[in-house]
Amino acid sequence: MNESSSPSPRWTPVFDRISDEKRRRVLESAKAAFARDGFAGTNVNRVAAAAGISVGALYKYFRTKDDLFLAIIEESHALLESTLNSIFAAEPSFFGRVEALLRAAARTSRDDPELVRIYVACTTEELSGLAERLSGSIETVSATRYRSMVAEAAASGEIVPDADPAMTAFFLDDIFLSVQFSCASTYYRDRLRLFVGDAADDDAVIAAALLFIRRSLAPR
Amino acid sequence: MNESSSPSPRWTPVFDRISDEKRRRVLESAKAAFARDGFAGTNVNRVAAAAGISVGALYKYFRTKDDLFLAIIEESHALLESTLNSIFAAEPSFFGRVEALLRAAARTSRDDPELVRIYVACTTEELSGLAERLSGSIETVSATRYRSMVAEAAASGEIVPDADPAMTAFFLDDIFLSVQFSCASTYYRDRLRLFVGDAADDDAVIAAALLFIRRSLAPR
Repeated sequence: MNESSSPSPRWTPVFDRISDEKRRRVLESAKAAFARDGFAGTNVNRVAAAAGISVGALYKYFRTKDDLFLAIIEESHALLESTLNSIFAAEPSFFGRVEALLRAAARTSRDDPELVRIYVACTTEELSGLAERLSGSIETVSATRYRSMVAEAAASGEIVPDADPAMTAFFLDDIFLSVQFSCASTYYRDRLRLFVGDAADDDAVIAAALLFIRRSLAPR
Repeated sequence: MNESSSPSPRWTPVFDRISDEKRRRVLESAKAAFARDGFAGTNVNRVAAAAGISVGALYKYFRTKDDLFLAIIEESHALLESTLNSIFAAEPSFFGRVEALLRAAARTSRDDPELVRIYVACTTEELSGLAERLSGSIETVSATRYRSMVAEAAASGEIVPDADPAMTAFFLDDIFLSVQFSCASTYYRDRLRLFVGDAADDDAVIAAALLFIRRSLAPR
């Protein structure tokens, strides 16, 4: 629906013209601050200082703190979409895909916990107005993919024929999200520990999740 | 571990001496503000104004904004514990309990969405230090209950004998949490809609969740 011809509605043309290294520095500084302090708690002066630029320069790249935050979220959506594309291209089977999605949820969280922490921040009520301004939600991509995956597997006999594609996709996503959050967020990591103890590593959680899902959906 | 003899470490004896009606008014104003604006975004002056008291009086009841926030969380933990006690006393069967837990997750969210929104805020990184100061986490109660429930049902043959109590309890809680969040939080409600559409009401989601869980755990 965006009729702008700009490559991103989030930053100014000035930001497109600076070096890749400097752009990366600005985005990384902002990501670290939002992940640690939340949206309201993030001070743009400190983001600029951490990136080694003036706050005036920062406002030449991003008109508002909202835009800076949304740019980071939209970058993470693009990353999720490319991860899903790779998994769906590489794995034809339903349970192969579920396992790959669980592994990707854990791995991407370990590689980039800050993005997951920002995603957790996005789920809060005070950011719901901001989240509505995103060009698309992270769930638009995953919901469509998972529903088709379930519908195809139900039709081919890989899973029970009457699995409801929409509901099944939703519960699968609940479990993927839980694995992802548990690997990156302090709160969710502590919750996982309270449930399963300190000894359980990512592989143990993934194996148990896969068994739980497989038992629910495998044909009798 | 708290050795204080005070009935609550969160508020002062002055707060114990004011009328129930006034106490309720203070707590409700604070709850509404934290649920809407988050912890960092909540202004204690506005909380006091909404409760019809001076900010000086508010600080006579709660020494810090942290204490006010923690008092509300701890009240919600007590509520959860009593809900769990009722369900476990009333429902002897495993799947009866799971269904009652799903219904309670939806009902309590509809009755008091603000508490759930505050719980979502608690999961963010910037509040992890505050969450650690709680006398106990909400999961200490639920993890213990759900693990025993799974272990007993596996032993009695109500569910598959090799269901891992800790892991199964964790995935059950993922689904309960998702139902609870989806009924109260703007972000999670929109996520549910993207997955299952506008037509699905609480009963449809609960029925689908129960089927997903039953198929995973019922003996073959």
